[in-house]
Amino acid sequence: MSWEAVDARKLRIQAEFEALLSRSNARLPSTNGVFCRYRDAILTREHVPLPWRFDFSPTTNPRFLERLGVNAVFNPGAIYYRGKYLLVARVEGADRKSFFAMAESDSGVDGFRFWDHPLDIPEGSPPDTNIYDMRLTQHEDGWIYGLFCTERKDFARPHDLTAAVAGCGIVRSRNLKDWERLPDLDAGPGQQRNVTLHPEFVDGQYLLYTRPQDGFVDVGGGGGIGWALVEDMSRARIARQEIVDPRAYHTIKEVKNGQGPPPLKTPHGWLHLAHGVRDTAAGLRYVLYVLLTDLKEPWRVVAAPGGYLIAPQGGERVGDVSNVAFCNGWAHDPETGRILIYYAASDTRVHVAETRLDELCDYALHTPSDSVSSRGAFEQRQALIAGNG
Amino acid sequence: MSWEAVDARKLRIQAEFEALLSRSNARLPSTNGVFCRYRDAILTREHVPLPWRFDFSPTTNPRFLERLGVNAVFNPGAIYYRGKYLLVARVEGADRKSFFAMAESDSGVDGFRFWDHPLDIPEGSPPDTNIYDMRLTQHEDGWIYGLFCTERKDFARPHDLTAAVAGCGIVRSRNLKDWERLPDLDAGPGQQRNVTLHPEFVDGQYLLYTRPQDGFVDVGGGGGIGWALVEDMSRARIARQEIVDPRAYHTIKEVKNGQGPPPLKTPHGWLHLAHGVRDTAAGLRYVLYVLLTDLKEPWRVVAAPGGYLIAPQGGERVGDVSNVAFCNGWAHDPETGRILIYYAASDTRVHVAETRLDELCDYALHTPSDSVSSRGAFEQRQALIAGNG
Repeated sequence: MSWEAVDARKLRIQAEFEALLSRSNARLPSTNGVFCRYRDAILTREHVPLPWRFDFSPTTNPRFLERLGVNAVFNPGAIYYRGKYLLVARVEGADRKSFFAMAESDSGVDGFRFWDHPLDIPEGSPPDTNIYDMRLTQHEDGWIYGLFCTERKDFARPHDLTAAVAGCGIVRSRNLKDWERLPDLDAGPGQQRNVTLHPEFVDGQYLLYTRPQDGFVDVGGGGGIGWALVEDMSRARIARQEIVDPRAYHTIKEVKNGQGPPPLKTPHGWLHLAHGVRDTAAGLRYVLYVLLTDLKEPWRVVAAPGGYLIAPQGGERVGDVSNVAFCNGWAHDPETGRILIYYAASDTRVHVAETRLDELCDYALHTPSDSVSSRGAFEQRQALIAGNG
Repeated sequence: MSWEAVDARKLRIQAEFEALLSRSNARLPSTNGVFCRYRDAILTREHVPLPWRFDFSPTTNPRFLERLGVNAVFNPGAIYYRGKYLLVARVEGADRKSFFAMAESDSGVDGFRFWDHPLDIPEGSPPDTNIYDMRLTQHEDGWIYGLFCTERKDFARPHDLTAAVAGCGIVRSRNLKDWERLPDLDAGPGQQRNVTLHPEFVDGQYLLYTRPQDGFVDVGGGGGIGWALVEDMSRARIARQEIVDPRAYHTIKEVKNGQGPPPLKTPHGWLHLAHGVRDTAAGLRYVLYVLLTDLKEPWRVVAAPGGYLIAPQGGERVGDVSNVAFCNGWAHDPETGRILIYYAASDTRVHVAETRLDELCDYALHTPSDSVSSRGAFEQRQALIAGNG
C-alpha cells in the first residue's frame, strides 16, 4: 500500500486550491434573454481557506489530516460595495453548525476569496445554536445591517430533539468587518424566518419583510411574505404584520414563500426576488420568483409575473437538500445596471446569474400573472401564439 | 424495429459481465488525508451472476429474457478472512425482497465475484418477510455471527399495509458457508435495528450494540445507540439496555443513529463506525461518523470527533433512497493496518474507502468534538487558524 506522501499531498492540495480560485468563469448563452447563468459555481466548500481546515504544524499534525471539515458553502448575503462584490456566506462545517464568512471578488463572477478570518458575530441572548442566511441591507441611516436566522432548541418540547425555534438575529456594521449585535427581533408569538430589511425609511420607520410561521419548518396558517414597521433597530419590535404576497394553492409558492435579498429601487417600483416552495413526493421544491411593489407603498404589489424566474437546473438539482434554488443576496451596480443574483443550489454551493435592471423590470411588467388554472394557462399560450400568427 | 439478435445479445451481456468483474479499480487522491475513495463502485446489481437472473435454456426462454431482475446490491457485512475480502451483500430483487449473497475478492477494492449460490439462511419463526443489513462478527468464542434485520408485517395494525416490525435475526457459521439460524434476539418491547455483536466477551458475556426504537422507521423516544449484555447467543435475551451514544439536537445524528460494523480494537480503544441521520426538506440524510470507546468498558465513549467522516458525494448522492451513506461492514488487515470501509450509496450500490488504523485513530483523537453551537464552531475554527498563524 503506497499512499501519497504527506508533503506531496500538501503541495498538491495547495496547488489545486490556487487553481480553483484563479479559474475564470464563463457566462453561458441565455435562452430566455432575462438572465444568463455562469458555467461554474462561484463559491463552494473547496473555496474555504486551507488554514481553516488543516493544522499545518508537522508537530501536532504530522499526517496533515483535515482537522475541521467543511460540508457546504451556500445562501450568501451580497452587496456591491466600493467597487467590490462581497458575499457573506453561510459556511457549514462537517458538524452541521454554520458560521458567516466574507468572500470578495472584483468581477463578481469568479475569483472569490474568503477574508483571512470568518466573521466574528457576537453570540445572541439566549445563545444561538445555529445562525445562517444573512440578508445584507445598506440602509439610508448609514449602517449596513445583517439580518439572519438564529435557531435554538425548543425548550418547550425538550423530548423532541428536532424541535427548534427560528428567530431573526440582527447585526450592523459601518465597514463590514466589525459587527455589533443588536437584540433579536421581537415579533411576538410564533417564529420568524427570511426577515429582510428594506433599504429606505417609510414614514420615518424601518420596514421589515417578514415570514411569520407556526413551527420551525411548517408555516402552518402563516399566510406568506409579510411586512411590518419598526421604530428603532436597536430594539426592533413589531406590533403588527400584514401580508404583502400570500402563498396560494397550486402555485410555485403553495407551501411557503419568503423574501430574498432587500428589494432594488427601479423607476417602476421596488423589485423583489423571493423563493416559493411546493411539496413533491421527493420533498420540497424551492424556486425563485420576482415581484414588483409600489415605490411609495412597498407593501403593495404592482406586478407579479407568473411562475418562477430560476429553478434548479442540471447539477444544481442535487445536493445536501436536493431540488432547492435559494437566494438571499444579489448585487446591483447602479452605474451599469448590472445585477448579479447569487443563488445557492441544493443547500450545497453558490451559483451566479447575471441580469440587468431593465431586463428584469421588462420581465416583471410583461410576464402574465399566474392564471391559477390549466384553462387560463392554455388561453395565455393561445394569445401568445395568435399574436405571433 | 431491428432488435439485436438473441444470441448476439447473450454474448454481449456475458462479455460485459466479464469485463465489469475484471476491471481494475483506481484509488483517488485524498484531500483530508484520513481516507481515500475509489473511482468505481465495487459491487452493484450488474455484478449479480447472470444465471441468477436469466434462464439460459433456449427451450424455455428462447428470447433470453431476464426472468428475475435485481434492483440493487448494498449494505454488506464484511470480513477479512484467510487473506480474502468477503462481503455478505444485501441483494434486492426487482420485487423489493432482499436476500444475502457472499462476494469475494483478493484485493478488497476490485474483482468481487459472488459465490455460485446466494446464502441459504434458514427462515425465522415467525417467518421473516424481509431480511437485510447483516453485521458479521468473528467472535472470540470461535463462531462467526451474522446479525441482521428481520422485518415482518405488524399484525397489530392489519389495515395499515406499511406497518412493519423490525427485529434482530441471528445466524452463525464456522466456515461462512453453512449458517445456523438461532432464535431472534428477545429485546423486550419496542423494535430493534442496527444490532451489532461486539467481538470479545465482556465479563464472560456477549455484548450487543442496539438501537431501540418505537416504530419501524421512527425511533420516537429512542435515545441512540445502546448496549446490552447477553448470556447465551443461542437464546439471546437482553434485560436492560443503556445508551452508549445518544442522538442530539442539531448534530448529524439528530433524528437517529445506529452502530455500523463491529468495532475494531486499537491501542487507544474500540474504534466504531456509525451512521447519523438528520432531516431535511428533501427527506432524511444519512452520513457516517466515528467514535472511540474504552477498551475495558466499550460502552464508555472516550473520543467523539465532531461531524461526519463520510457523506454522500457526487454520484453517490442519488439512488433508490437518495442522500444516504450507510455502512455495516469494514475489513481490517491487522498485518498492514489497512482498513477498507464498505459503504453503500443511496441504497443502491457499494463503494469502498481505504484508510489505516493509525490515520483513523489520529482522526478520532484529534478532531474536536461537536461544540453544538455556531459560536463554538467559530471558536474552534479561529483556534485552528490562529495555530496556523
